[in-house]
Amino acid sequence: MLGFVYMFLRSAWISKQSVGTDEMDRISKLIAKGAMSFLKAEYRVLGIFIAIATVLLGALSLTDANSSLFIMLAFVVGAVFSGTAGFIGMRVATLANVRTAQAARTSLSKALDISFAGGTIMGTGVVSLGLLGLTLLYLLFNYLFNQTGTDAEMMRVLNVLTGFSLGAESIALFARVGGGIYTKAADVGADLAGKVVAGIPEDDPRNPAVIADNVGDNVGDVAGMGADLFGSYVSTVLATMVLGVLVKADQNDNSYAAVTLPLLIAAIGTLFSMAAFFVVKVKEGGNPQAALNRGNLVAIVLTAIASYFVITNVLPETCQEFKKTADGALVLTHTYASINIFFSVLIGLAVGGLISVITEYYCAMGKRPVLSIVRQSLSSPATNIIGGISIGMESTALPAIVLASGIVGSYMVGGLFGVAMAAAGMMATTGIQLAIDAFGPIADNAGGIAEMSGLPKEVRKNTDVLDAVGNTTAAIGKGFAIASAALTALALFAAFMEITHLEELNIADPKVLGGMLVGGMIPYLFSSMAISAVGRAAGAMVQEVARQFREIKGLLAGEPGVSADYETCITISTQAAIREMMLPGLMALVVPTVVGFAFGPAVLGGLLAGVLVSGLLLAMFQSNAGGAWDNAKKSFEAGVEINGQMYYKGSDVHKNSVVGDTVGDPFKDTSGPSMNILIKLTMIMALIIAPYIA
Amino acid sequence: MLGFVYMFLRSAWISKQSVGTDEMDRISKLIAKGAMSFLKAEYRVLGIFIAIATVLLGALSLTDANSSLFIMLAFVVGAVFSGTAGFIGMRVATLANVRTAQAARTSLSKALDISFAGGTIMGTGVVSLGLLGLTLLYLLFNYLFNQTGTDAEMMRVLNVLTGFSLGAESIALFARVGGGIYTKAADVGADLAGKVVAGIPEDDPRNPAVIADNVGDNVGDVAGMGADLFGSYVSTVLATMVLGVLVKADQNDNSYAAVTLPLLIAAIGTLFSMAAFFVVKVKEGGNPQAALNRGNLVAIVLTAIASYFVITNVLPETCQEFKKTADGALVLTHTYASINIFFSVLIGLAVGGLISVITEYYCAMGKRPVLSIVRQSLSSPATNIIGGISIGMESTALPAIVLASGIVGSYMVGGLFGVAMAAAGMMATTGIQLAIDAFGPIADNAGGIAEMSGLPKEVRKNTDVLDAVGNTTAAIGKGFAIASAALTALALFAAFMEITHLEELNIADPKVLGGMLVGGMIPYLFSSMAISAVGRAAGAMVQEVARQFREIKGLLAGEPGVSADYETCITISTQAAIREMMLPGLMALVVPTVVGFAFGPAVLGGLLAGVLVSGLLLAMFQSNAGGAWDNAKKSFEAGVEINGQMYYKGSDVHKNSVVGDTVGDPFKDTSGPSMNILIKLTMIMALIIAPYIA
Repeated sequence: MLGFVYMFLRSAWISKQSVGTDEMDRISKLIAKGAMSFLKAEYRVLGIFIAIATVLLGALSLTDANSSLFIMLAFVVGAVFSGTAGFIGMRVATLANVRTAQAARTSLSKALDISFAGGTIMGTGVVSLGLLGLTLLYLLFNYLFNQTGTDAEMMRVLNVLTGFSLGAESIALFARVGGGIYTKAADVGADLAGKVVAGIPEDDPRNPAVIADNVGDNVGDVAGMGADLFGSYVSTVLATMVLGVLVKADQNDNSYAAVTLPLLIAAIGTLFSMAAFFVVKVKEGGNPQAALNRGNLVAIVLTAIASYFVITNVLPETCQEFKKTADGALVLTHTYASINIFFSVLIGLAVGGLISVITEYYCAMGKRPVLSIVRQSLSSPATNIIGGISIGMESTALPAIVLASGIVGSYMVGGLFGVAMAAAGMMATTGIQLAIDAFGPIADNAGGIAEMSGLPKEVRKNTDVLDAVGNTTAAIGKGFAIASAALTALALFAAFMEITHLEELNIADPKVLGGMLVGGMIPYLFSSMAISAVGRAAGAMVQEVARQFREIKGLLAGEPGVSADYETCITISTQAAIREMMLPGLMALVVPTVVGFAFGPAVLGGLLAGVLVSGLLLAMFQSNAGGAWDNAKKSFEAGVEINGQMYYKGSDVHKNSVVGDTVGDPFKDTSGPSMNILIKLTMIMALIIAPYIA
Repeated sequence: MLGFVYMFLRSAWISKQSVGTDEMDRISKLIAKGAMSFLKAEYRVLGIFIAIATVLLGALSLTDANSSLFIMLAFVVGAVFSGTAGFIGMRVATLANVRTAQAARTSLSKALDISFAGGTIMGTGVVSLGLLGLTLLYLLFNYLFNQTGTDAEMMRVLNVLTGFSLGAESIALFARVGGGIYTKAADVGADLAGKVVAGIPEDDPRNPAVIADNVGDNVGDVAGMGADLFGSYVSTVLATMVLGVLVKADQNDNSYAAVTLPLLIAAIGTLFSMAAFFVVKVKEGGNPQAALNRGNLVAIVLTAIASYFVITNVLPETCQEFKKTADGALVLTHTYASINIFFSVLIGLAVGGLISVITEYYCAMGKRPVLSIVRQSLSSPATNIIGGISIGMESTALPAIVLASGIVGSYMVGGLFGVAMAAAGMMATTGIQLAIDAFGPIADNAGGIAEMSGLPKEVRKNTDVLDAVGNTTAAIGKGFAIASAALTALALFAAFMEITHLEELNIADPKVLGGMLVGGMIPYLFSSMAISAVGRAAGAMVQEVARQFREIKGLLAGEPGVSADYETCITISTQAAIREMMLPGLMALVVPTVVGFAFGPAVLGGLLAGVLVSGLLLAMFQSNAGGAWDNAKKSFEAGVEINGQMYYKGSDVHKNSVVGDTVGDPFKDTSGPSMNILIKLTMIMALIIAPYIA
C-alpha cells in the first residue's frame, strides 16, 4: 500500500518538472507515442495468448475442475499484473526522459534525481504488485483449500498459486523477447543504416530509425525488464514457499512458518528499498555511481539485519526438512538451527555480489578482457569477433564455479529450503535494484533527446555521465539476475521433484540423459530464433531507411522543414517484434508440456536439468560477450593505445570494433537476458503439469 | 596383419608415382619438411608429458601397485600407437599430395586413385594399430589377472586396459588441438596477411605464410584427425567391452562372450573396409563423390550383414544384463534376445547416417541455411556473423533429438550394452571412413601445390573437384564422429557408474547439479582457450608477413629469385601450437582428477554429465556454424543472386562473407572437433580413477 502511495506522489512530482523546449517536447511525445503504440499492439496479441492459454490450462486439468478454475484465475491475474508492471515503468520512463534532459541543462544532480525517481517508481510498482498479488491470492487459496491444515492441502494451495507465477513469467518472456527484438532491430538498423547508406551518426535526427531506436530503450530495457523482474520476483518467492511446506519443527508441526517467511522477507526488502531511495543523492560534480552503490548497500545491509530477526523469530529454533516419498510418508533429510537459514541468505547475497563483480570485470573498460578485444580489433573485424567470443566463453568459468559453490554451500547449511532462501534474500531488494537498472535507459533516452533537439554539448556530457553509470549498473543487475535465476530454478526443480514424487532423477538412465540433451538444445534453438529475428528486422529497417533517403527529397541534406517518416520505422520494429516473439515464447511453454505428457516425469526432469545448465551458460556467454564488445568499441571513443600507436573513433580499427558491438547487441539485449526467463518458465510449466503427469 | 601388408604395398605404389616438375618437388619437400619438423617438436613435448603422466599414474594408484604398473604400460603403448597413427598418415599424405597434383595434370581418375590411396593407408594404419594394441594387451592382461574367471577379475583386466585408451585419447587431444591451432593460425594468418598487408591471394607463393598453411592441412586435418579417430576407435571398443562384462546367459555364465564381441565386430569392419577400398574407382569425367559413397555403403552393408551372423552366434540366445550393487550382488536389469543387439547396431548406423545428412544440410551450398547467411552478408560483416551464429545454434536442434532418440532406442532394445554396441557398429567401418576423410586434405594440398608451382588452370580444376568432394565428406565424417562420441560417452559413463558402485546420480542432489554446472562450463573454457590461441597466433603471423614484405626487397613485386622466408612462418605456427595446446589439454586431465578426489564420485559424475551435454552441443554449434560460413563465402566464388542482383568474388558483399569464414575457421577446425575428444578423455580419466575414489 505504502508502495502505491509512493508511486502516486512521485509520479506527480515528475510530471511537474519542466519538459524544456518545444522541440524536446515534440521528440519526447513521438517517443512516448511510439512506445505506447508498441505496448498496445503487444498487449493485444498477448491478450489473445492469455485467453487461449487460460482455456488450455482449464482443459489440461480436467481431472480436477476445482483447482483448475483457480489456476486459471491466478494465471490471468499474474499476466495482467506483469503487463501492468511493464506499463507503469514505460509510462514513467517516457515522462522522465525529457525532463531528465531538461534538468541536465542546468544540473547533474537534478538530472540524477529525476531519472532515478523514474526508476524508483517502476521498482516500487513491480515489487508492490508482486507482493499484493502473491499475498491476496495466497490468502484466498488458503481460505478455500486449506481446511484442515495438512501438507497435501498446503501443497495444493501453492500449486494453484503457481498459476500466478506462470502468468507473470509468460508475459515476462514475451515482453523480454518482443522488447528485445524491437530495441535491437531499431538499434542495429539505425546503426547500419547510418553507416551503410548515408554516413550519418546514429542519433542524428535525419536518420528515420532514430525515434524507433529511442522507443526501443523504453519497450525493451524498461517495459521488458520490468516484466522480467516481476516474473523473477514472484517465482523466487513462490518456489521458496513451496519448499517451505516440508520445513517444520517436527513431523507433526503444521504451522507452516517457513511458507510465510519468504513473503515476510520480501515485504521487509521492499520497505528498506524504499527507505534507501532517499540516500541516493549526489552533489553537483559528485559521483552518481557512488550514490547508487550507497543506496543499494543500505538496502541490502538493512534487509540482511532485519532478516536475521525475522528468520530467528518466525522459524522454529530447530528446523527439520523432510522429503515426501511416493507413498506419502515423510523422510527426514536435514536438521538445522533456524539461524542457518540466515546464513543461507548471506551466502545468496555473497554469490550475487561475486557474480556481479566478475560480470563487471569482464565488461569493464580498461580491464584485461575488453583490452584484449581492443587489441584484436587491429587486424580485422574477424579477429575482433574471435576475441569477443573467446572472452564470452571464458567469462562462464568463474561464475559457474561461484554458483556451484553457492548452491552446494547453501544446501549444506540449510537444505533445499536454504538454497531457495538464498535466492529469496537476493531478490528481496529488487525494489532498489530495479530502480537502479531502470534509471540507465532513462538517462540514455535523455541523451538521445538532447542530441536530437540540438541542445548544447554540455548537456549531452551530463547525460553521458549518467548513461555510463547505467551501463555498469546494468552489468551488475545482470549478474544478480543470473545468480538468482540459478538458485530459483534449483528450488523450482526441487519442487517439481516433490510434486511428481520422483525420488531420484538418475543421469545414468538413458531416458533422463536423452531428456537432458534435448533440454540443453532448447536454449540454443531459442537464442537462434531471437538472434535471427533481430537480424531480419534490422535488415528490413536498413531497406526502409535507404528508401526514405532515396524518396524524401532534402532529407539527407537536412533542409529545414523536411522530416523523416519516423512512424514507418516504428511500425517495422513493432510488427517484427510482435511477429517474431511468438514462436520462441510458445516453444518454452509447449515443449515441456508435450515432453511431460508424452514421456513422463523422468524425461521431463532430464529436460529441465538440460535447460538449466545450458541456459545459464549461454546466458553468461552471450551477455558478457555483448557487454565486452560494446565497451571495446566505446574504448575507441576515448582513444586507445595499441603497440605504441593511438587509435580513435572513426579509425579503421574502431570500425572493426563496431562489427563486434553490432553482433553483441542481440546477444546482450535480446537472447542473453531471455535465458533466465526461459529457464524459469520451463520449470514453472513443468511444475504446473506435475500433478497430472506424476 | 593383413592391414600392415596392405599399407606396405600401397605405400610402395604411391612412392613410385611421379612427383612432376622440379618446382612441384621442391614445394612438396618444403611442406613435408615443415610437417615433419612440427611433428618432431610436438612429439618431443608429448614425450615429456607421457613420462610425467606415467609417473603420476603410478603414484595415483599406490594402493594397487600391481595394476598400476600395467596401467602405465598400457598408457605408454596407447600414446605411442596414437602418435604412430598420426605419423603414418602425415607421412603418406605428404607423399601423396604432390603425386596427386601431378596425376591431376592428366587424369581426374588417377588423381582420385592416388589421393584416396593415401587416405586408405592412414585408415588401415589407424584401425590395424588399434586392433593390434587392444587385442594383444587384452590377451596379456587376461592372462595375468583373470585366473579364475570372475566378474571382478574381468573388470580389473578392462580397468587396466583403459590405460591404453587414456594414452590414445590424451595424444589425440593434444594432436587435435595442437594441429588445429597450427593449421588455423597459418590459414587465418595467410588469409589476413594477404588481405591486410598486400592484397595478394591466399595461395600465392609470394605470401610467406603459404607453406605453413599447407603444412597445417597435414598436421591438423591428417595427423590430428588420425590420432583423433584412433582414440575414438579404441575408446568405443573398450567401453563396449566393459559393459559386456555384465551381459550373460545367466547369473553364473562366465564365458564373457559380450566382452570379445566388440573386438570381433571391429575386426570384421576392418576387413570389409579394406575390401571396399577396391570399389572406389571413377571413370574419367565421372563423379568422385559417388565412388566414395559407393565404397562407404559397401563397407557398411557388408559389415552390418556379417555382424548379424557374428552377434547371433557369439552371444547367448537370450542375454541378461545385470547391474552390480555396492555389496557385489548382481541385479537383473534387462533381458533380451541376442538379435536385439543387432538391432542396436542398426540404430547406431541410422543415427550416424541421419546426423550426417543433417550436418550436410546445414553446411551445403544452395540450401536454406547457407543461403540465409549469404543474404545476410548484404548489409555488413556483422549481419553475416549474426546469421552464422544463428544457423549454428539452430543446427543443434535436430541432431540433439536424433541422438536422444537413438540413445533411448538402442537402450530399450539392448540395454546399456546395446547403446555401446550402437556406437561400436558405427565405428566398425572407421577404416574406410578415415580413408574418405583423409583424402580431402590430400586433394586440398595437391591444389595448393598446383597453384604455387604455376601449373595450368585445368589441373587446379581437377583438384578443386576433389577438394569440394572432400568438404562434403568432412561434414559427413563430423556427423559420424559426434554421433559415435555421444554413444561412446554414454557407455563410458555407464562404465564409470559401474566401477564406482554409484547406483544413481541424482540431478536433484545439489552436489550433482553443482558438478554439472562446472562440467558444462569446461567445454566453454576449453573452446575459449583454443579459439583465442588461434587469434593470437594468427596475429603474430600477420606481423611476420608484414615484416617480410617490408624487409625482403623484391618479394612483393615477385622478382625472380626472391623467395619468402617460409621457415620463420612455419616456426611461428609450430611454436604457437605447441605452447598453446598444453593448457587446454592438461585441463581435460587435471579437472576430473582433482574434482574426483576432492569431492567424490557423485560430484564427478555430475561434472561428466555436464561436459557431455554441453560439449556435444558446442561441438555441433561450432562445427556447423563454421562449415556454413565457409560455404556461404564459397557461394560467392560461383556468383549468387540476392534480390535480383548478382554478386561475385571480390564484391563488398563477398568481403563481408569472408569475415564469417575467418571466424568460422577456428570454430570448425580447432575447438569444434576437439569437443568429442574432450568429452571422452574426461570420461576415461574418470574411469581410470574410479576404483580409487569409489
